[in-house]
Amino acid sequence: MPDPTPDLSALLRPRSIAVIGASSQPEKVGGMPIRLLRELGYGGRVHPVNTASAEIQGLPATPSLGALGEPVDLAIVAVPALASADVMAQLAANGTRAAVFFTSGFAEVGEAGTRMQQALAEQARHHGITLLGPNCLGAMNLRERMFATFSPIPLGGLPPLGDVGLVSQSGAFGAYAFALAREAGLGLSHWVTTGNEAGLQVADVIEWLAHDDDTRVILTYMEGCRDGERLRRALAAARAAGKPVVVAKVGVTEAGARSAQSHTASLAGEDAVYQAVFDEYGVHRAESLEAFFRLGYVLSRGRRPSRWHSASGLAADAVAPVAIVTVSGGVGIMMADRAEQLGLPMPPMPAAPAQALRAAIPFASTANPIDVTGQIVAQPRVLLDALRDVAECGEYGSVVAFLAAGANAPALWPELQRTVAALHASNGSAPLLLCGLVADDRRAWLEQHGCLVFREPAHAIEAVAALARAAAQPTDTGGEPAAGSPLPQLPRIAADAGALSEHEAMQLLAEAGVPVAPHGLARDADEAVRLAERLGYPVAVKLCSREILHKSDVGGVALNLHDAAAVRAAFARVRDAARRHAQQSGGAPGPFDGVVVARMLRGWGELMVGVRRDPVFGLVALAGIGGTAVEVFRQMAFGLAPLSMPRALAMLRESRAEALFVGHRGNPAVPLERVAQVLVRVSQAAAAIGPRLDTLEINPFIVTVDGPVAADAVITLRHDAS
Amino acid sequence: MPDPTPDLSALLRPRSIAVIGASSQPEKVGGMPIRLLRELGYGGRVHPVNTASAEIQGLPATPSLGALGEPVDLAIVAVPALASADVMAQLAANGTRAAVFFTSGFAEVGEAGTRMQQALAEQARHHGITLLGPNCLGAMNLRERMFATFSPIPLGGLPPLGDVGLVSQSGAFGAYAFALAREAGLGLSHWVTTGNEAGLQVADVIEWLAHDDDTRVILTYMEGCRDGERLRRALAAARAAGKPVVVAKVGVTEAGARSAQSHTASLAGEDAVYQAVFDEYGVHRAESLEAFFRLGYVLSRGRRPSRWHSASGLAADAVAPVAIVTVSGGVGIMMADRAEQLGLPMPPMPAAPAQALRAAIPFASTANPIDVTGQIVAQPRVLLDALRDVAECGEYGSVVAFLAAGANAPALWPELQRTVAALHASNGSAPLLLCGLVADDRRAWLEQHGCLVFREPAHAIEAVAALARAAAQPTDTGGEPAAGSPLPQLPRIAADAGALSEHEAMQLLAEAGVPVAPHGLARDADEAVRLAERLGYPVAVKLCSREILHKSDVGGVALNLHDAAAVRAAFARVRDAARRHAQQSGGAPGPFDGVVVARMLRGWGELMVGVRRDPVFGLVALAGIGGTAVEVFRQMAFGLAPLSMPRALAMLRESRAEALFVGHRGNPAVPLERVAQVLVRVSQAAAAIGPRLDTLEINPFIVTVDGPVAADAVITLRHDAS
Repeated sequence: MPDPTPDLSALLRPRSIAVIGASSQPEKVGGMPIRLLRELGYGGRVHPVNTASAEIQGLPATPSLGALGEPVDLAIVAVPALASADVMAQLAANGTRAAVFFTSGFAEVGEAGTRMQQALAEQARHHGITLLGPNCLGAMNLRERMFATFSPIPLGGLPPLGDVGLVSQSGAFGAYAFALAREAGLGLSHWVTTGNEAGLQVADVIEWLAHDDDTRVILTYMEGCRDGERLRRALAAARAAGKPVVVAKVGVTEAGARSAQSHTASLAGEDAVYQAVFDEYGVHRAESLEAFFRLGYVLSRGRRPSRWHSASGLAADAVAPVAIVTVSGGVGIMMADRAEQLGLPMPPMPAAPAQALRAAIPFASTANPIDVTGQIVAQPRVLLDALRDVAECGEYGSVVAFLAAGANAPALWPELQRTVAALHASNGSAPLLLCGLVADDRRAWLEQHGCLVFREPAHAIEAVAALARAAAQPTDTGGEPAAGSPLPQLPRIAADAGALSEHEAMQLLAEAGVPVAPHGLARDADEAVRLAERLGYPVAVKLCSREILHKSDVGGVALNLHDAAAVRAAFARVRDAARRHAQQSGGAPGPFDGVVVARMLRGWGELMVGVRRDPVFGLVALAGIGGTAVEVFRQMAFGLAPLSMPRALAMLRESRAEALFVGHRGNPAVPLERVAQVLVRVSQAAAAIGPRLDTLEINPFIVTVDGPVAADAVITLRHDAS
Repeated sequence: MPDPTPDLSALLRPRSIAVIGASSQPEKVGGMPIRLLRELGYGGRVHPVNTASAEIQGLPATPSLGALGEPVDLAIVAVPALASADVMAQLAANGTRAAVFFTSGFAEVGEAGTRMQQALAEQARHHGITLLGPNCLGAMNLRERMFATFSPIPLGGLPPLGDVGLVSQSGAFGAYAFALAREAGLGLSHWVTTGNEAGLQVADVIEWLAHDDDTRVILTYMEGCRDGERLRRALAAARAAGKPVVVAKVGVTEAGARSAQSHTASLAGEDAVYQAVFDEYGVHRAESLEAFFRLGYVLSRGRRPSRWHSASGLAADAVAPVAIVTVSGGVGIMMADRAEQLGLPMPPMPAAPAQALRAAIPFASTANPIDVTGQIVAQPRVLLDALRDVAECGEYGSVVAFLAAGANAPALWPELQRTVAALHASNGSAPLLLCGLVADDRRAWLEQHGCLVFREPAHAIEAVAALARAAAQPTDTGGEPAAGSPLPQLPRIAADAGALSEHEAMQLLAEAGVPVAPHGLARDADEAVRLAERLGYPVAVKLCSREILHKSDVGGVALNLHDAAAVRAAFARVRDAARRHAQQSGGAPGPFDGVVVARMLRGWGELMVGVRRDPVFGLVALAGIGGTAVEVFRQMAFGLAPLSMPRALAMLRESRAEALFVGHRGNPAVPLERVAQVLVRVSQAAAAIGPRLDTLEINPFIVTVDGPVAADAVITLRHDAS
């Protein structure tokens, strides 16, 4: 049973806080939180707990929590790891609702630490105490000026109060992020670091922030995730609440993943699977710290495009038509390059405003990018009219304007203000994203009037893409993605099986509605010939065995057989190969189930489609072009199984497999929906097998006029189907 | 004959300047340069030329250049386009050495303007006047405070004097870049905008800056290039001078290229070809304005890695082993991800310093990234000792350290200063790149002591890659890349040929040392059978004709023929196909040259290798995996022909074609050098054909145990071999 959704209100909105291991020295781990809470204006009660002093940093101290005589909402714990079990018992006795354990020396240091950590988590669970850490930097609620951290970073100043919640697995990352947010003026609501995650995980904090009224955007740093179900539930909650989630997930490459594993006890997993999860929930992924904060700025301050669409129906694929207005042709081209890379349509300027622009500046370009040329120095109204026209014409979802240093020009600024204010007040106009040099006070004014402002032109274009994605995010699904049709009913699989034979696998797929090559099982040569005649030549004859999955490696496959004699000879060769293999593996010859006789399919390409069990996220489907290309280009696309139709369509596009179905090189076109439907069915077949499924692979999946048809299939099972 | 290298000294270091069309109003195009030259301290003589006033902005004016009585070095021209021919005649009469034409209304406005521009260029060439523009924003020499521009942007302040030369085709881009350089504190030497490029092109300015003692790094913005030879000569000069070139080349995508064409009269060309040129000369490409300036900062201020290497021998592929030292495991992983993406090796910490680090902080990670953990707050020496040890151990080319807010910490700063100063003074230590929050004055101090400083961790890693590339740039080659072996002598091609027949093409390739399938030409069925028996079955029979290049489209190809009867039948079918095709095309049957009989090759994959003529850069070779994958993945790599061996090797890697030769899937391994040698020979064959070559394509190039063997070839020729 999944854990219930944790309640973080005692942690993040405590009315009273005890500091266990409180110190008189403000720079110590047990002293800093007291200093922060007192100096920065926390409004609740603070109780230092210290056996030696009656007063700590000017506050009356209590020798023990027991002596306090009242339950506290939150305990900040700064004692050595070995004392942690004791402290937890005191918290339980006090009725404390939540605890932050700063202490290190747990799972990150080895076996003994891991056992201590598990015991701590078990105590917390048993007593219903919300546990943050251990080995973490704590948490803050900026609005309530609640600083349950030993990081001195808030002393350097606080970022503005805002609606961005930040949750980081790493404390050092969290502290740096806090400092950068302060520098960038990014408004924060909460700040939480989860450390070793014995209790609360990043996912829990995301889920709580999804329901928090003070938070509209969630920034997340994660190295890995141990509980995929919990993360999915959290991302679904954020989506349902219409709150964009930005993730900096490190460990993208193999080297990074290795470091992630050495850095924490968490499982880095395979990055492509994480990406599939993020795409499923429309999560915004940041590839750098800079992009992390920029996405926070864009999504918390930016207006969604007034028009957008998604080819696949997924938020991850949403784009908005953009008008690029520029005073520099060159920068316009840079922006057009980026827009094209991101798939943003750039429809040309409508006729009427185009005519007006050309009337004023004959050499202006009214295609898109719309180049008003350097003339704006002399004719500022022309630029502003063009901006207004494209923002109001209804053609564009967003308007990006490159002004160079124009916004700082005395002649332009008052007119620009008038135009921006009018657009801000009007209903239905497309939002404006400006780039160029803009003085700080003017930038603030522009932002207050609905504009985003950038220095780098490419960033404005990227902002449009991110905002389109946010706009396309469905908020009404409530939880899980639409599951599609119900799972098929499949025949029972013998309890002791470690794999299915090819024949069993093909039968199972056929039951699930997946097209498979016409085939049958033959136990002797006569039966093989009869089958071949019934199926029609040419046929393939393949060893059928639960024991030998890589049958071509042992000589167990004969292809392109054109007559009865060839089938007989092939049968004999395959049977001999099976016997030889059994002898070589040293055991008695296993059961020879016979051979699969299958009609050879004529097609013009191969897909490779599989489903495998990811240790974190469960069943994951992958698809791409098969054959040699699989290994050279490795362009596989991933999705959570069972797949939805939009996801299956997106996978065909991402893997470029759709190129096989568009009627290229004289091949007939196959509707992509039909192909996607087959992918969905494969993923449903895997899901229907249930917890015993380990991997399901169809390779090759021959591309024919009727869509993909499975020519071979391998299904392996787990024994511990817990 | 190529144009001689233009001399820009009169343009950029003039001792006297005349302003034609000088205005009393400083904000006018003819007034601004006078204001700038006077206010900002130009030391030479300035002569306003104005028919109406005897005094302009406090300077004595002359009614005409003729009245001046002495030649000037530079004329700044701000008169309408229609007056330009007249002005040019006056310049010639005066003996003016260089001219900047601000005036617009030339090639960018259409036919008539283009003609005027051509006439202007012709006049300048005839009189030996160096011409910048027209339709440009002019030029500046920051050191000599020479401002031949009508942009008011220098009035807002100047960037520091430095060694970065900036040349931009676009004026608006140039002005914005100037402002950003000022903001970023990037030190500039010269600033030039080339506009319509009737005279000077971006390439000419690059070449002049390559020889300019005040310039060490060249930043270039270009939309396109009309003269590939000139650009290559310029890039070769910069390379020979050891000066890195950073290019922002827009028009990367199709949309961008379309805009580039509408924006200027320049030819955008194909981006992959530009990329091949840039790679050939080790040019640094910036994908954004931000990256453009960052590369300028890195290359002008950064120390080259103390160790680096290049797998292919090309600067474009150079990498340096990097030590990543971090106080945050998470940020360390982010940096490791980026380093892995860029191919930077991350060898682990050597044993002795690793032991020292672990002795101080038992849970520190001494793998790479080297995670000194948050303990540095308490133990700053541990971090600094680790920094010193890795910088001095000789294992690493560069050391990147993430300090979070550490450099601002009072406890750490003096110690950090001591360590940095000591490393700066020591010989042979690896350069240090720091990232984190650093106050401006401390940043300046660090930079003066050999460090680069970044806010974004990924940028420090990218800097290492860029500096490795700069370090690997050969400076002693003087000019063109090493051409390799001399071009083969090939048989003469008939003057009227538009294409070669397959047989002719295969013969020519064989002469050039390219392995081709055993084959022969047969004019009748008997000869075809005799050939087949001699070559050995199975064979292919293919229509051989100069007229029909796509022979399989007309039924002119029969593959996998196993005996004489099949060859006879195939011959008849192919001959009939040729006749039918001739009838259908409506003409008399063309000459039936016969058929090519070729032995079928057994291989395990296909290459596609071609050479085509690029309108700007001449012969360009491309290579990649053939078959369906070509069209789906389009992963072709490009290089200038004739190829060098390093470039050919790099192309095999970039296109991933090397996967076919590494002994994968039970296939034998083929030495990559042998394959690269074949690519070089193909490119030499194309070069040896000379100016008549239009395209040469080998497809398929079958991958066999002996390397690639050509199974088919098409060579098309140009008639106007000018």
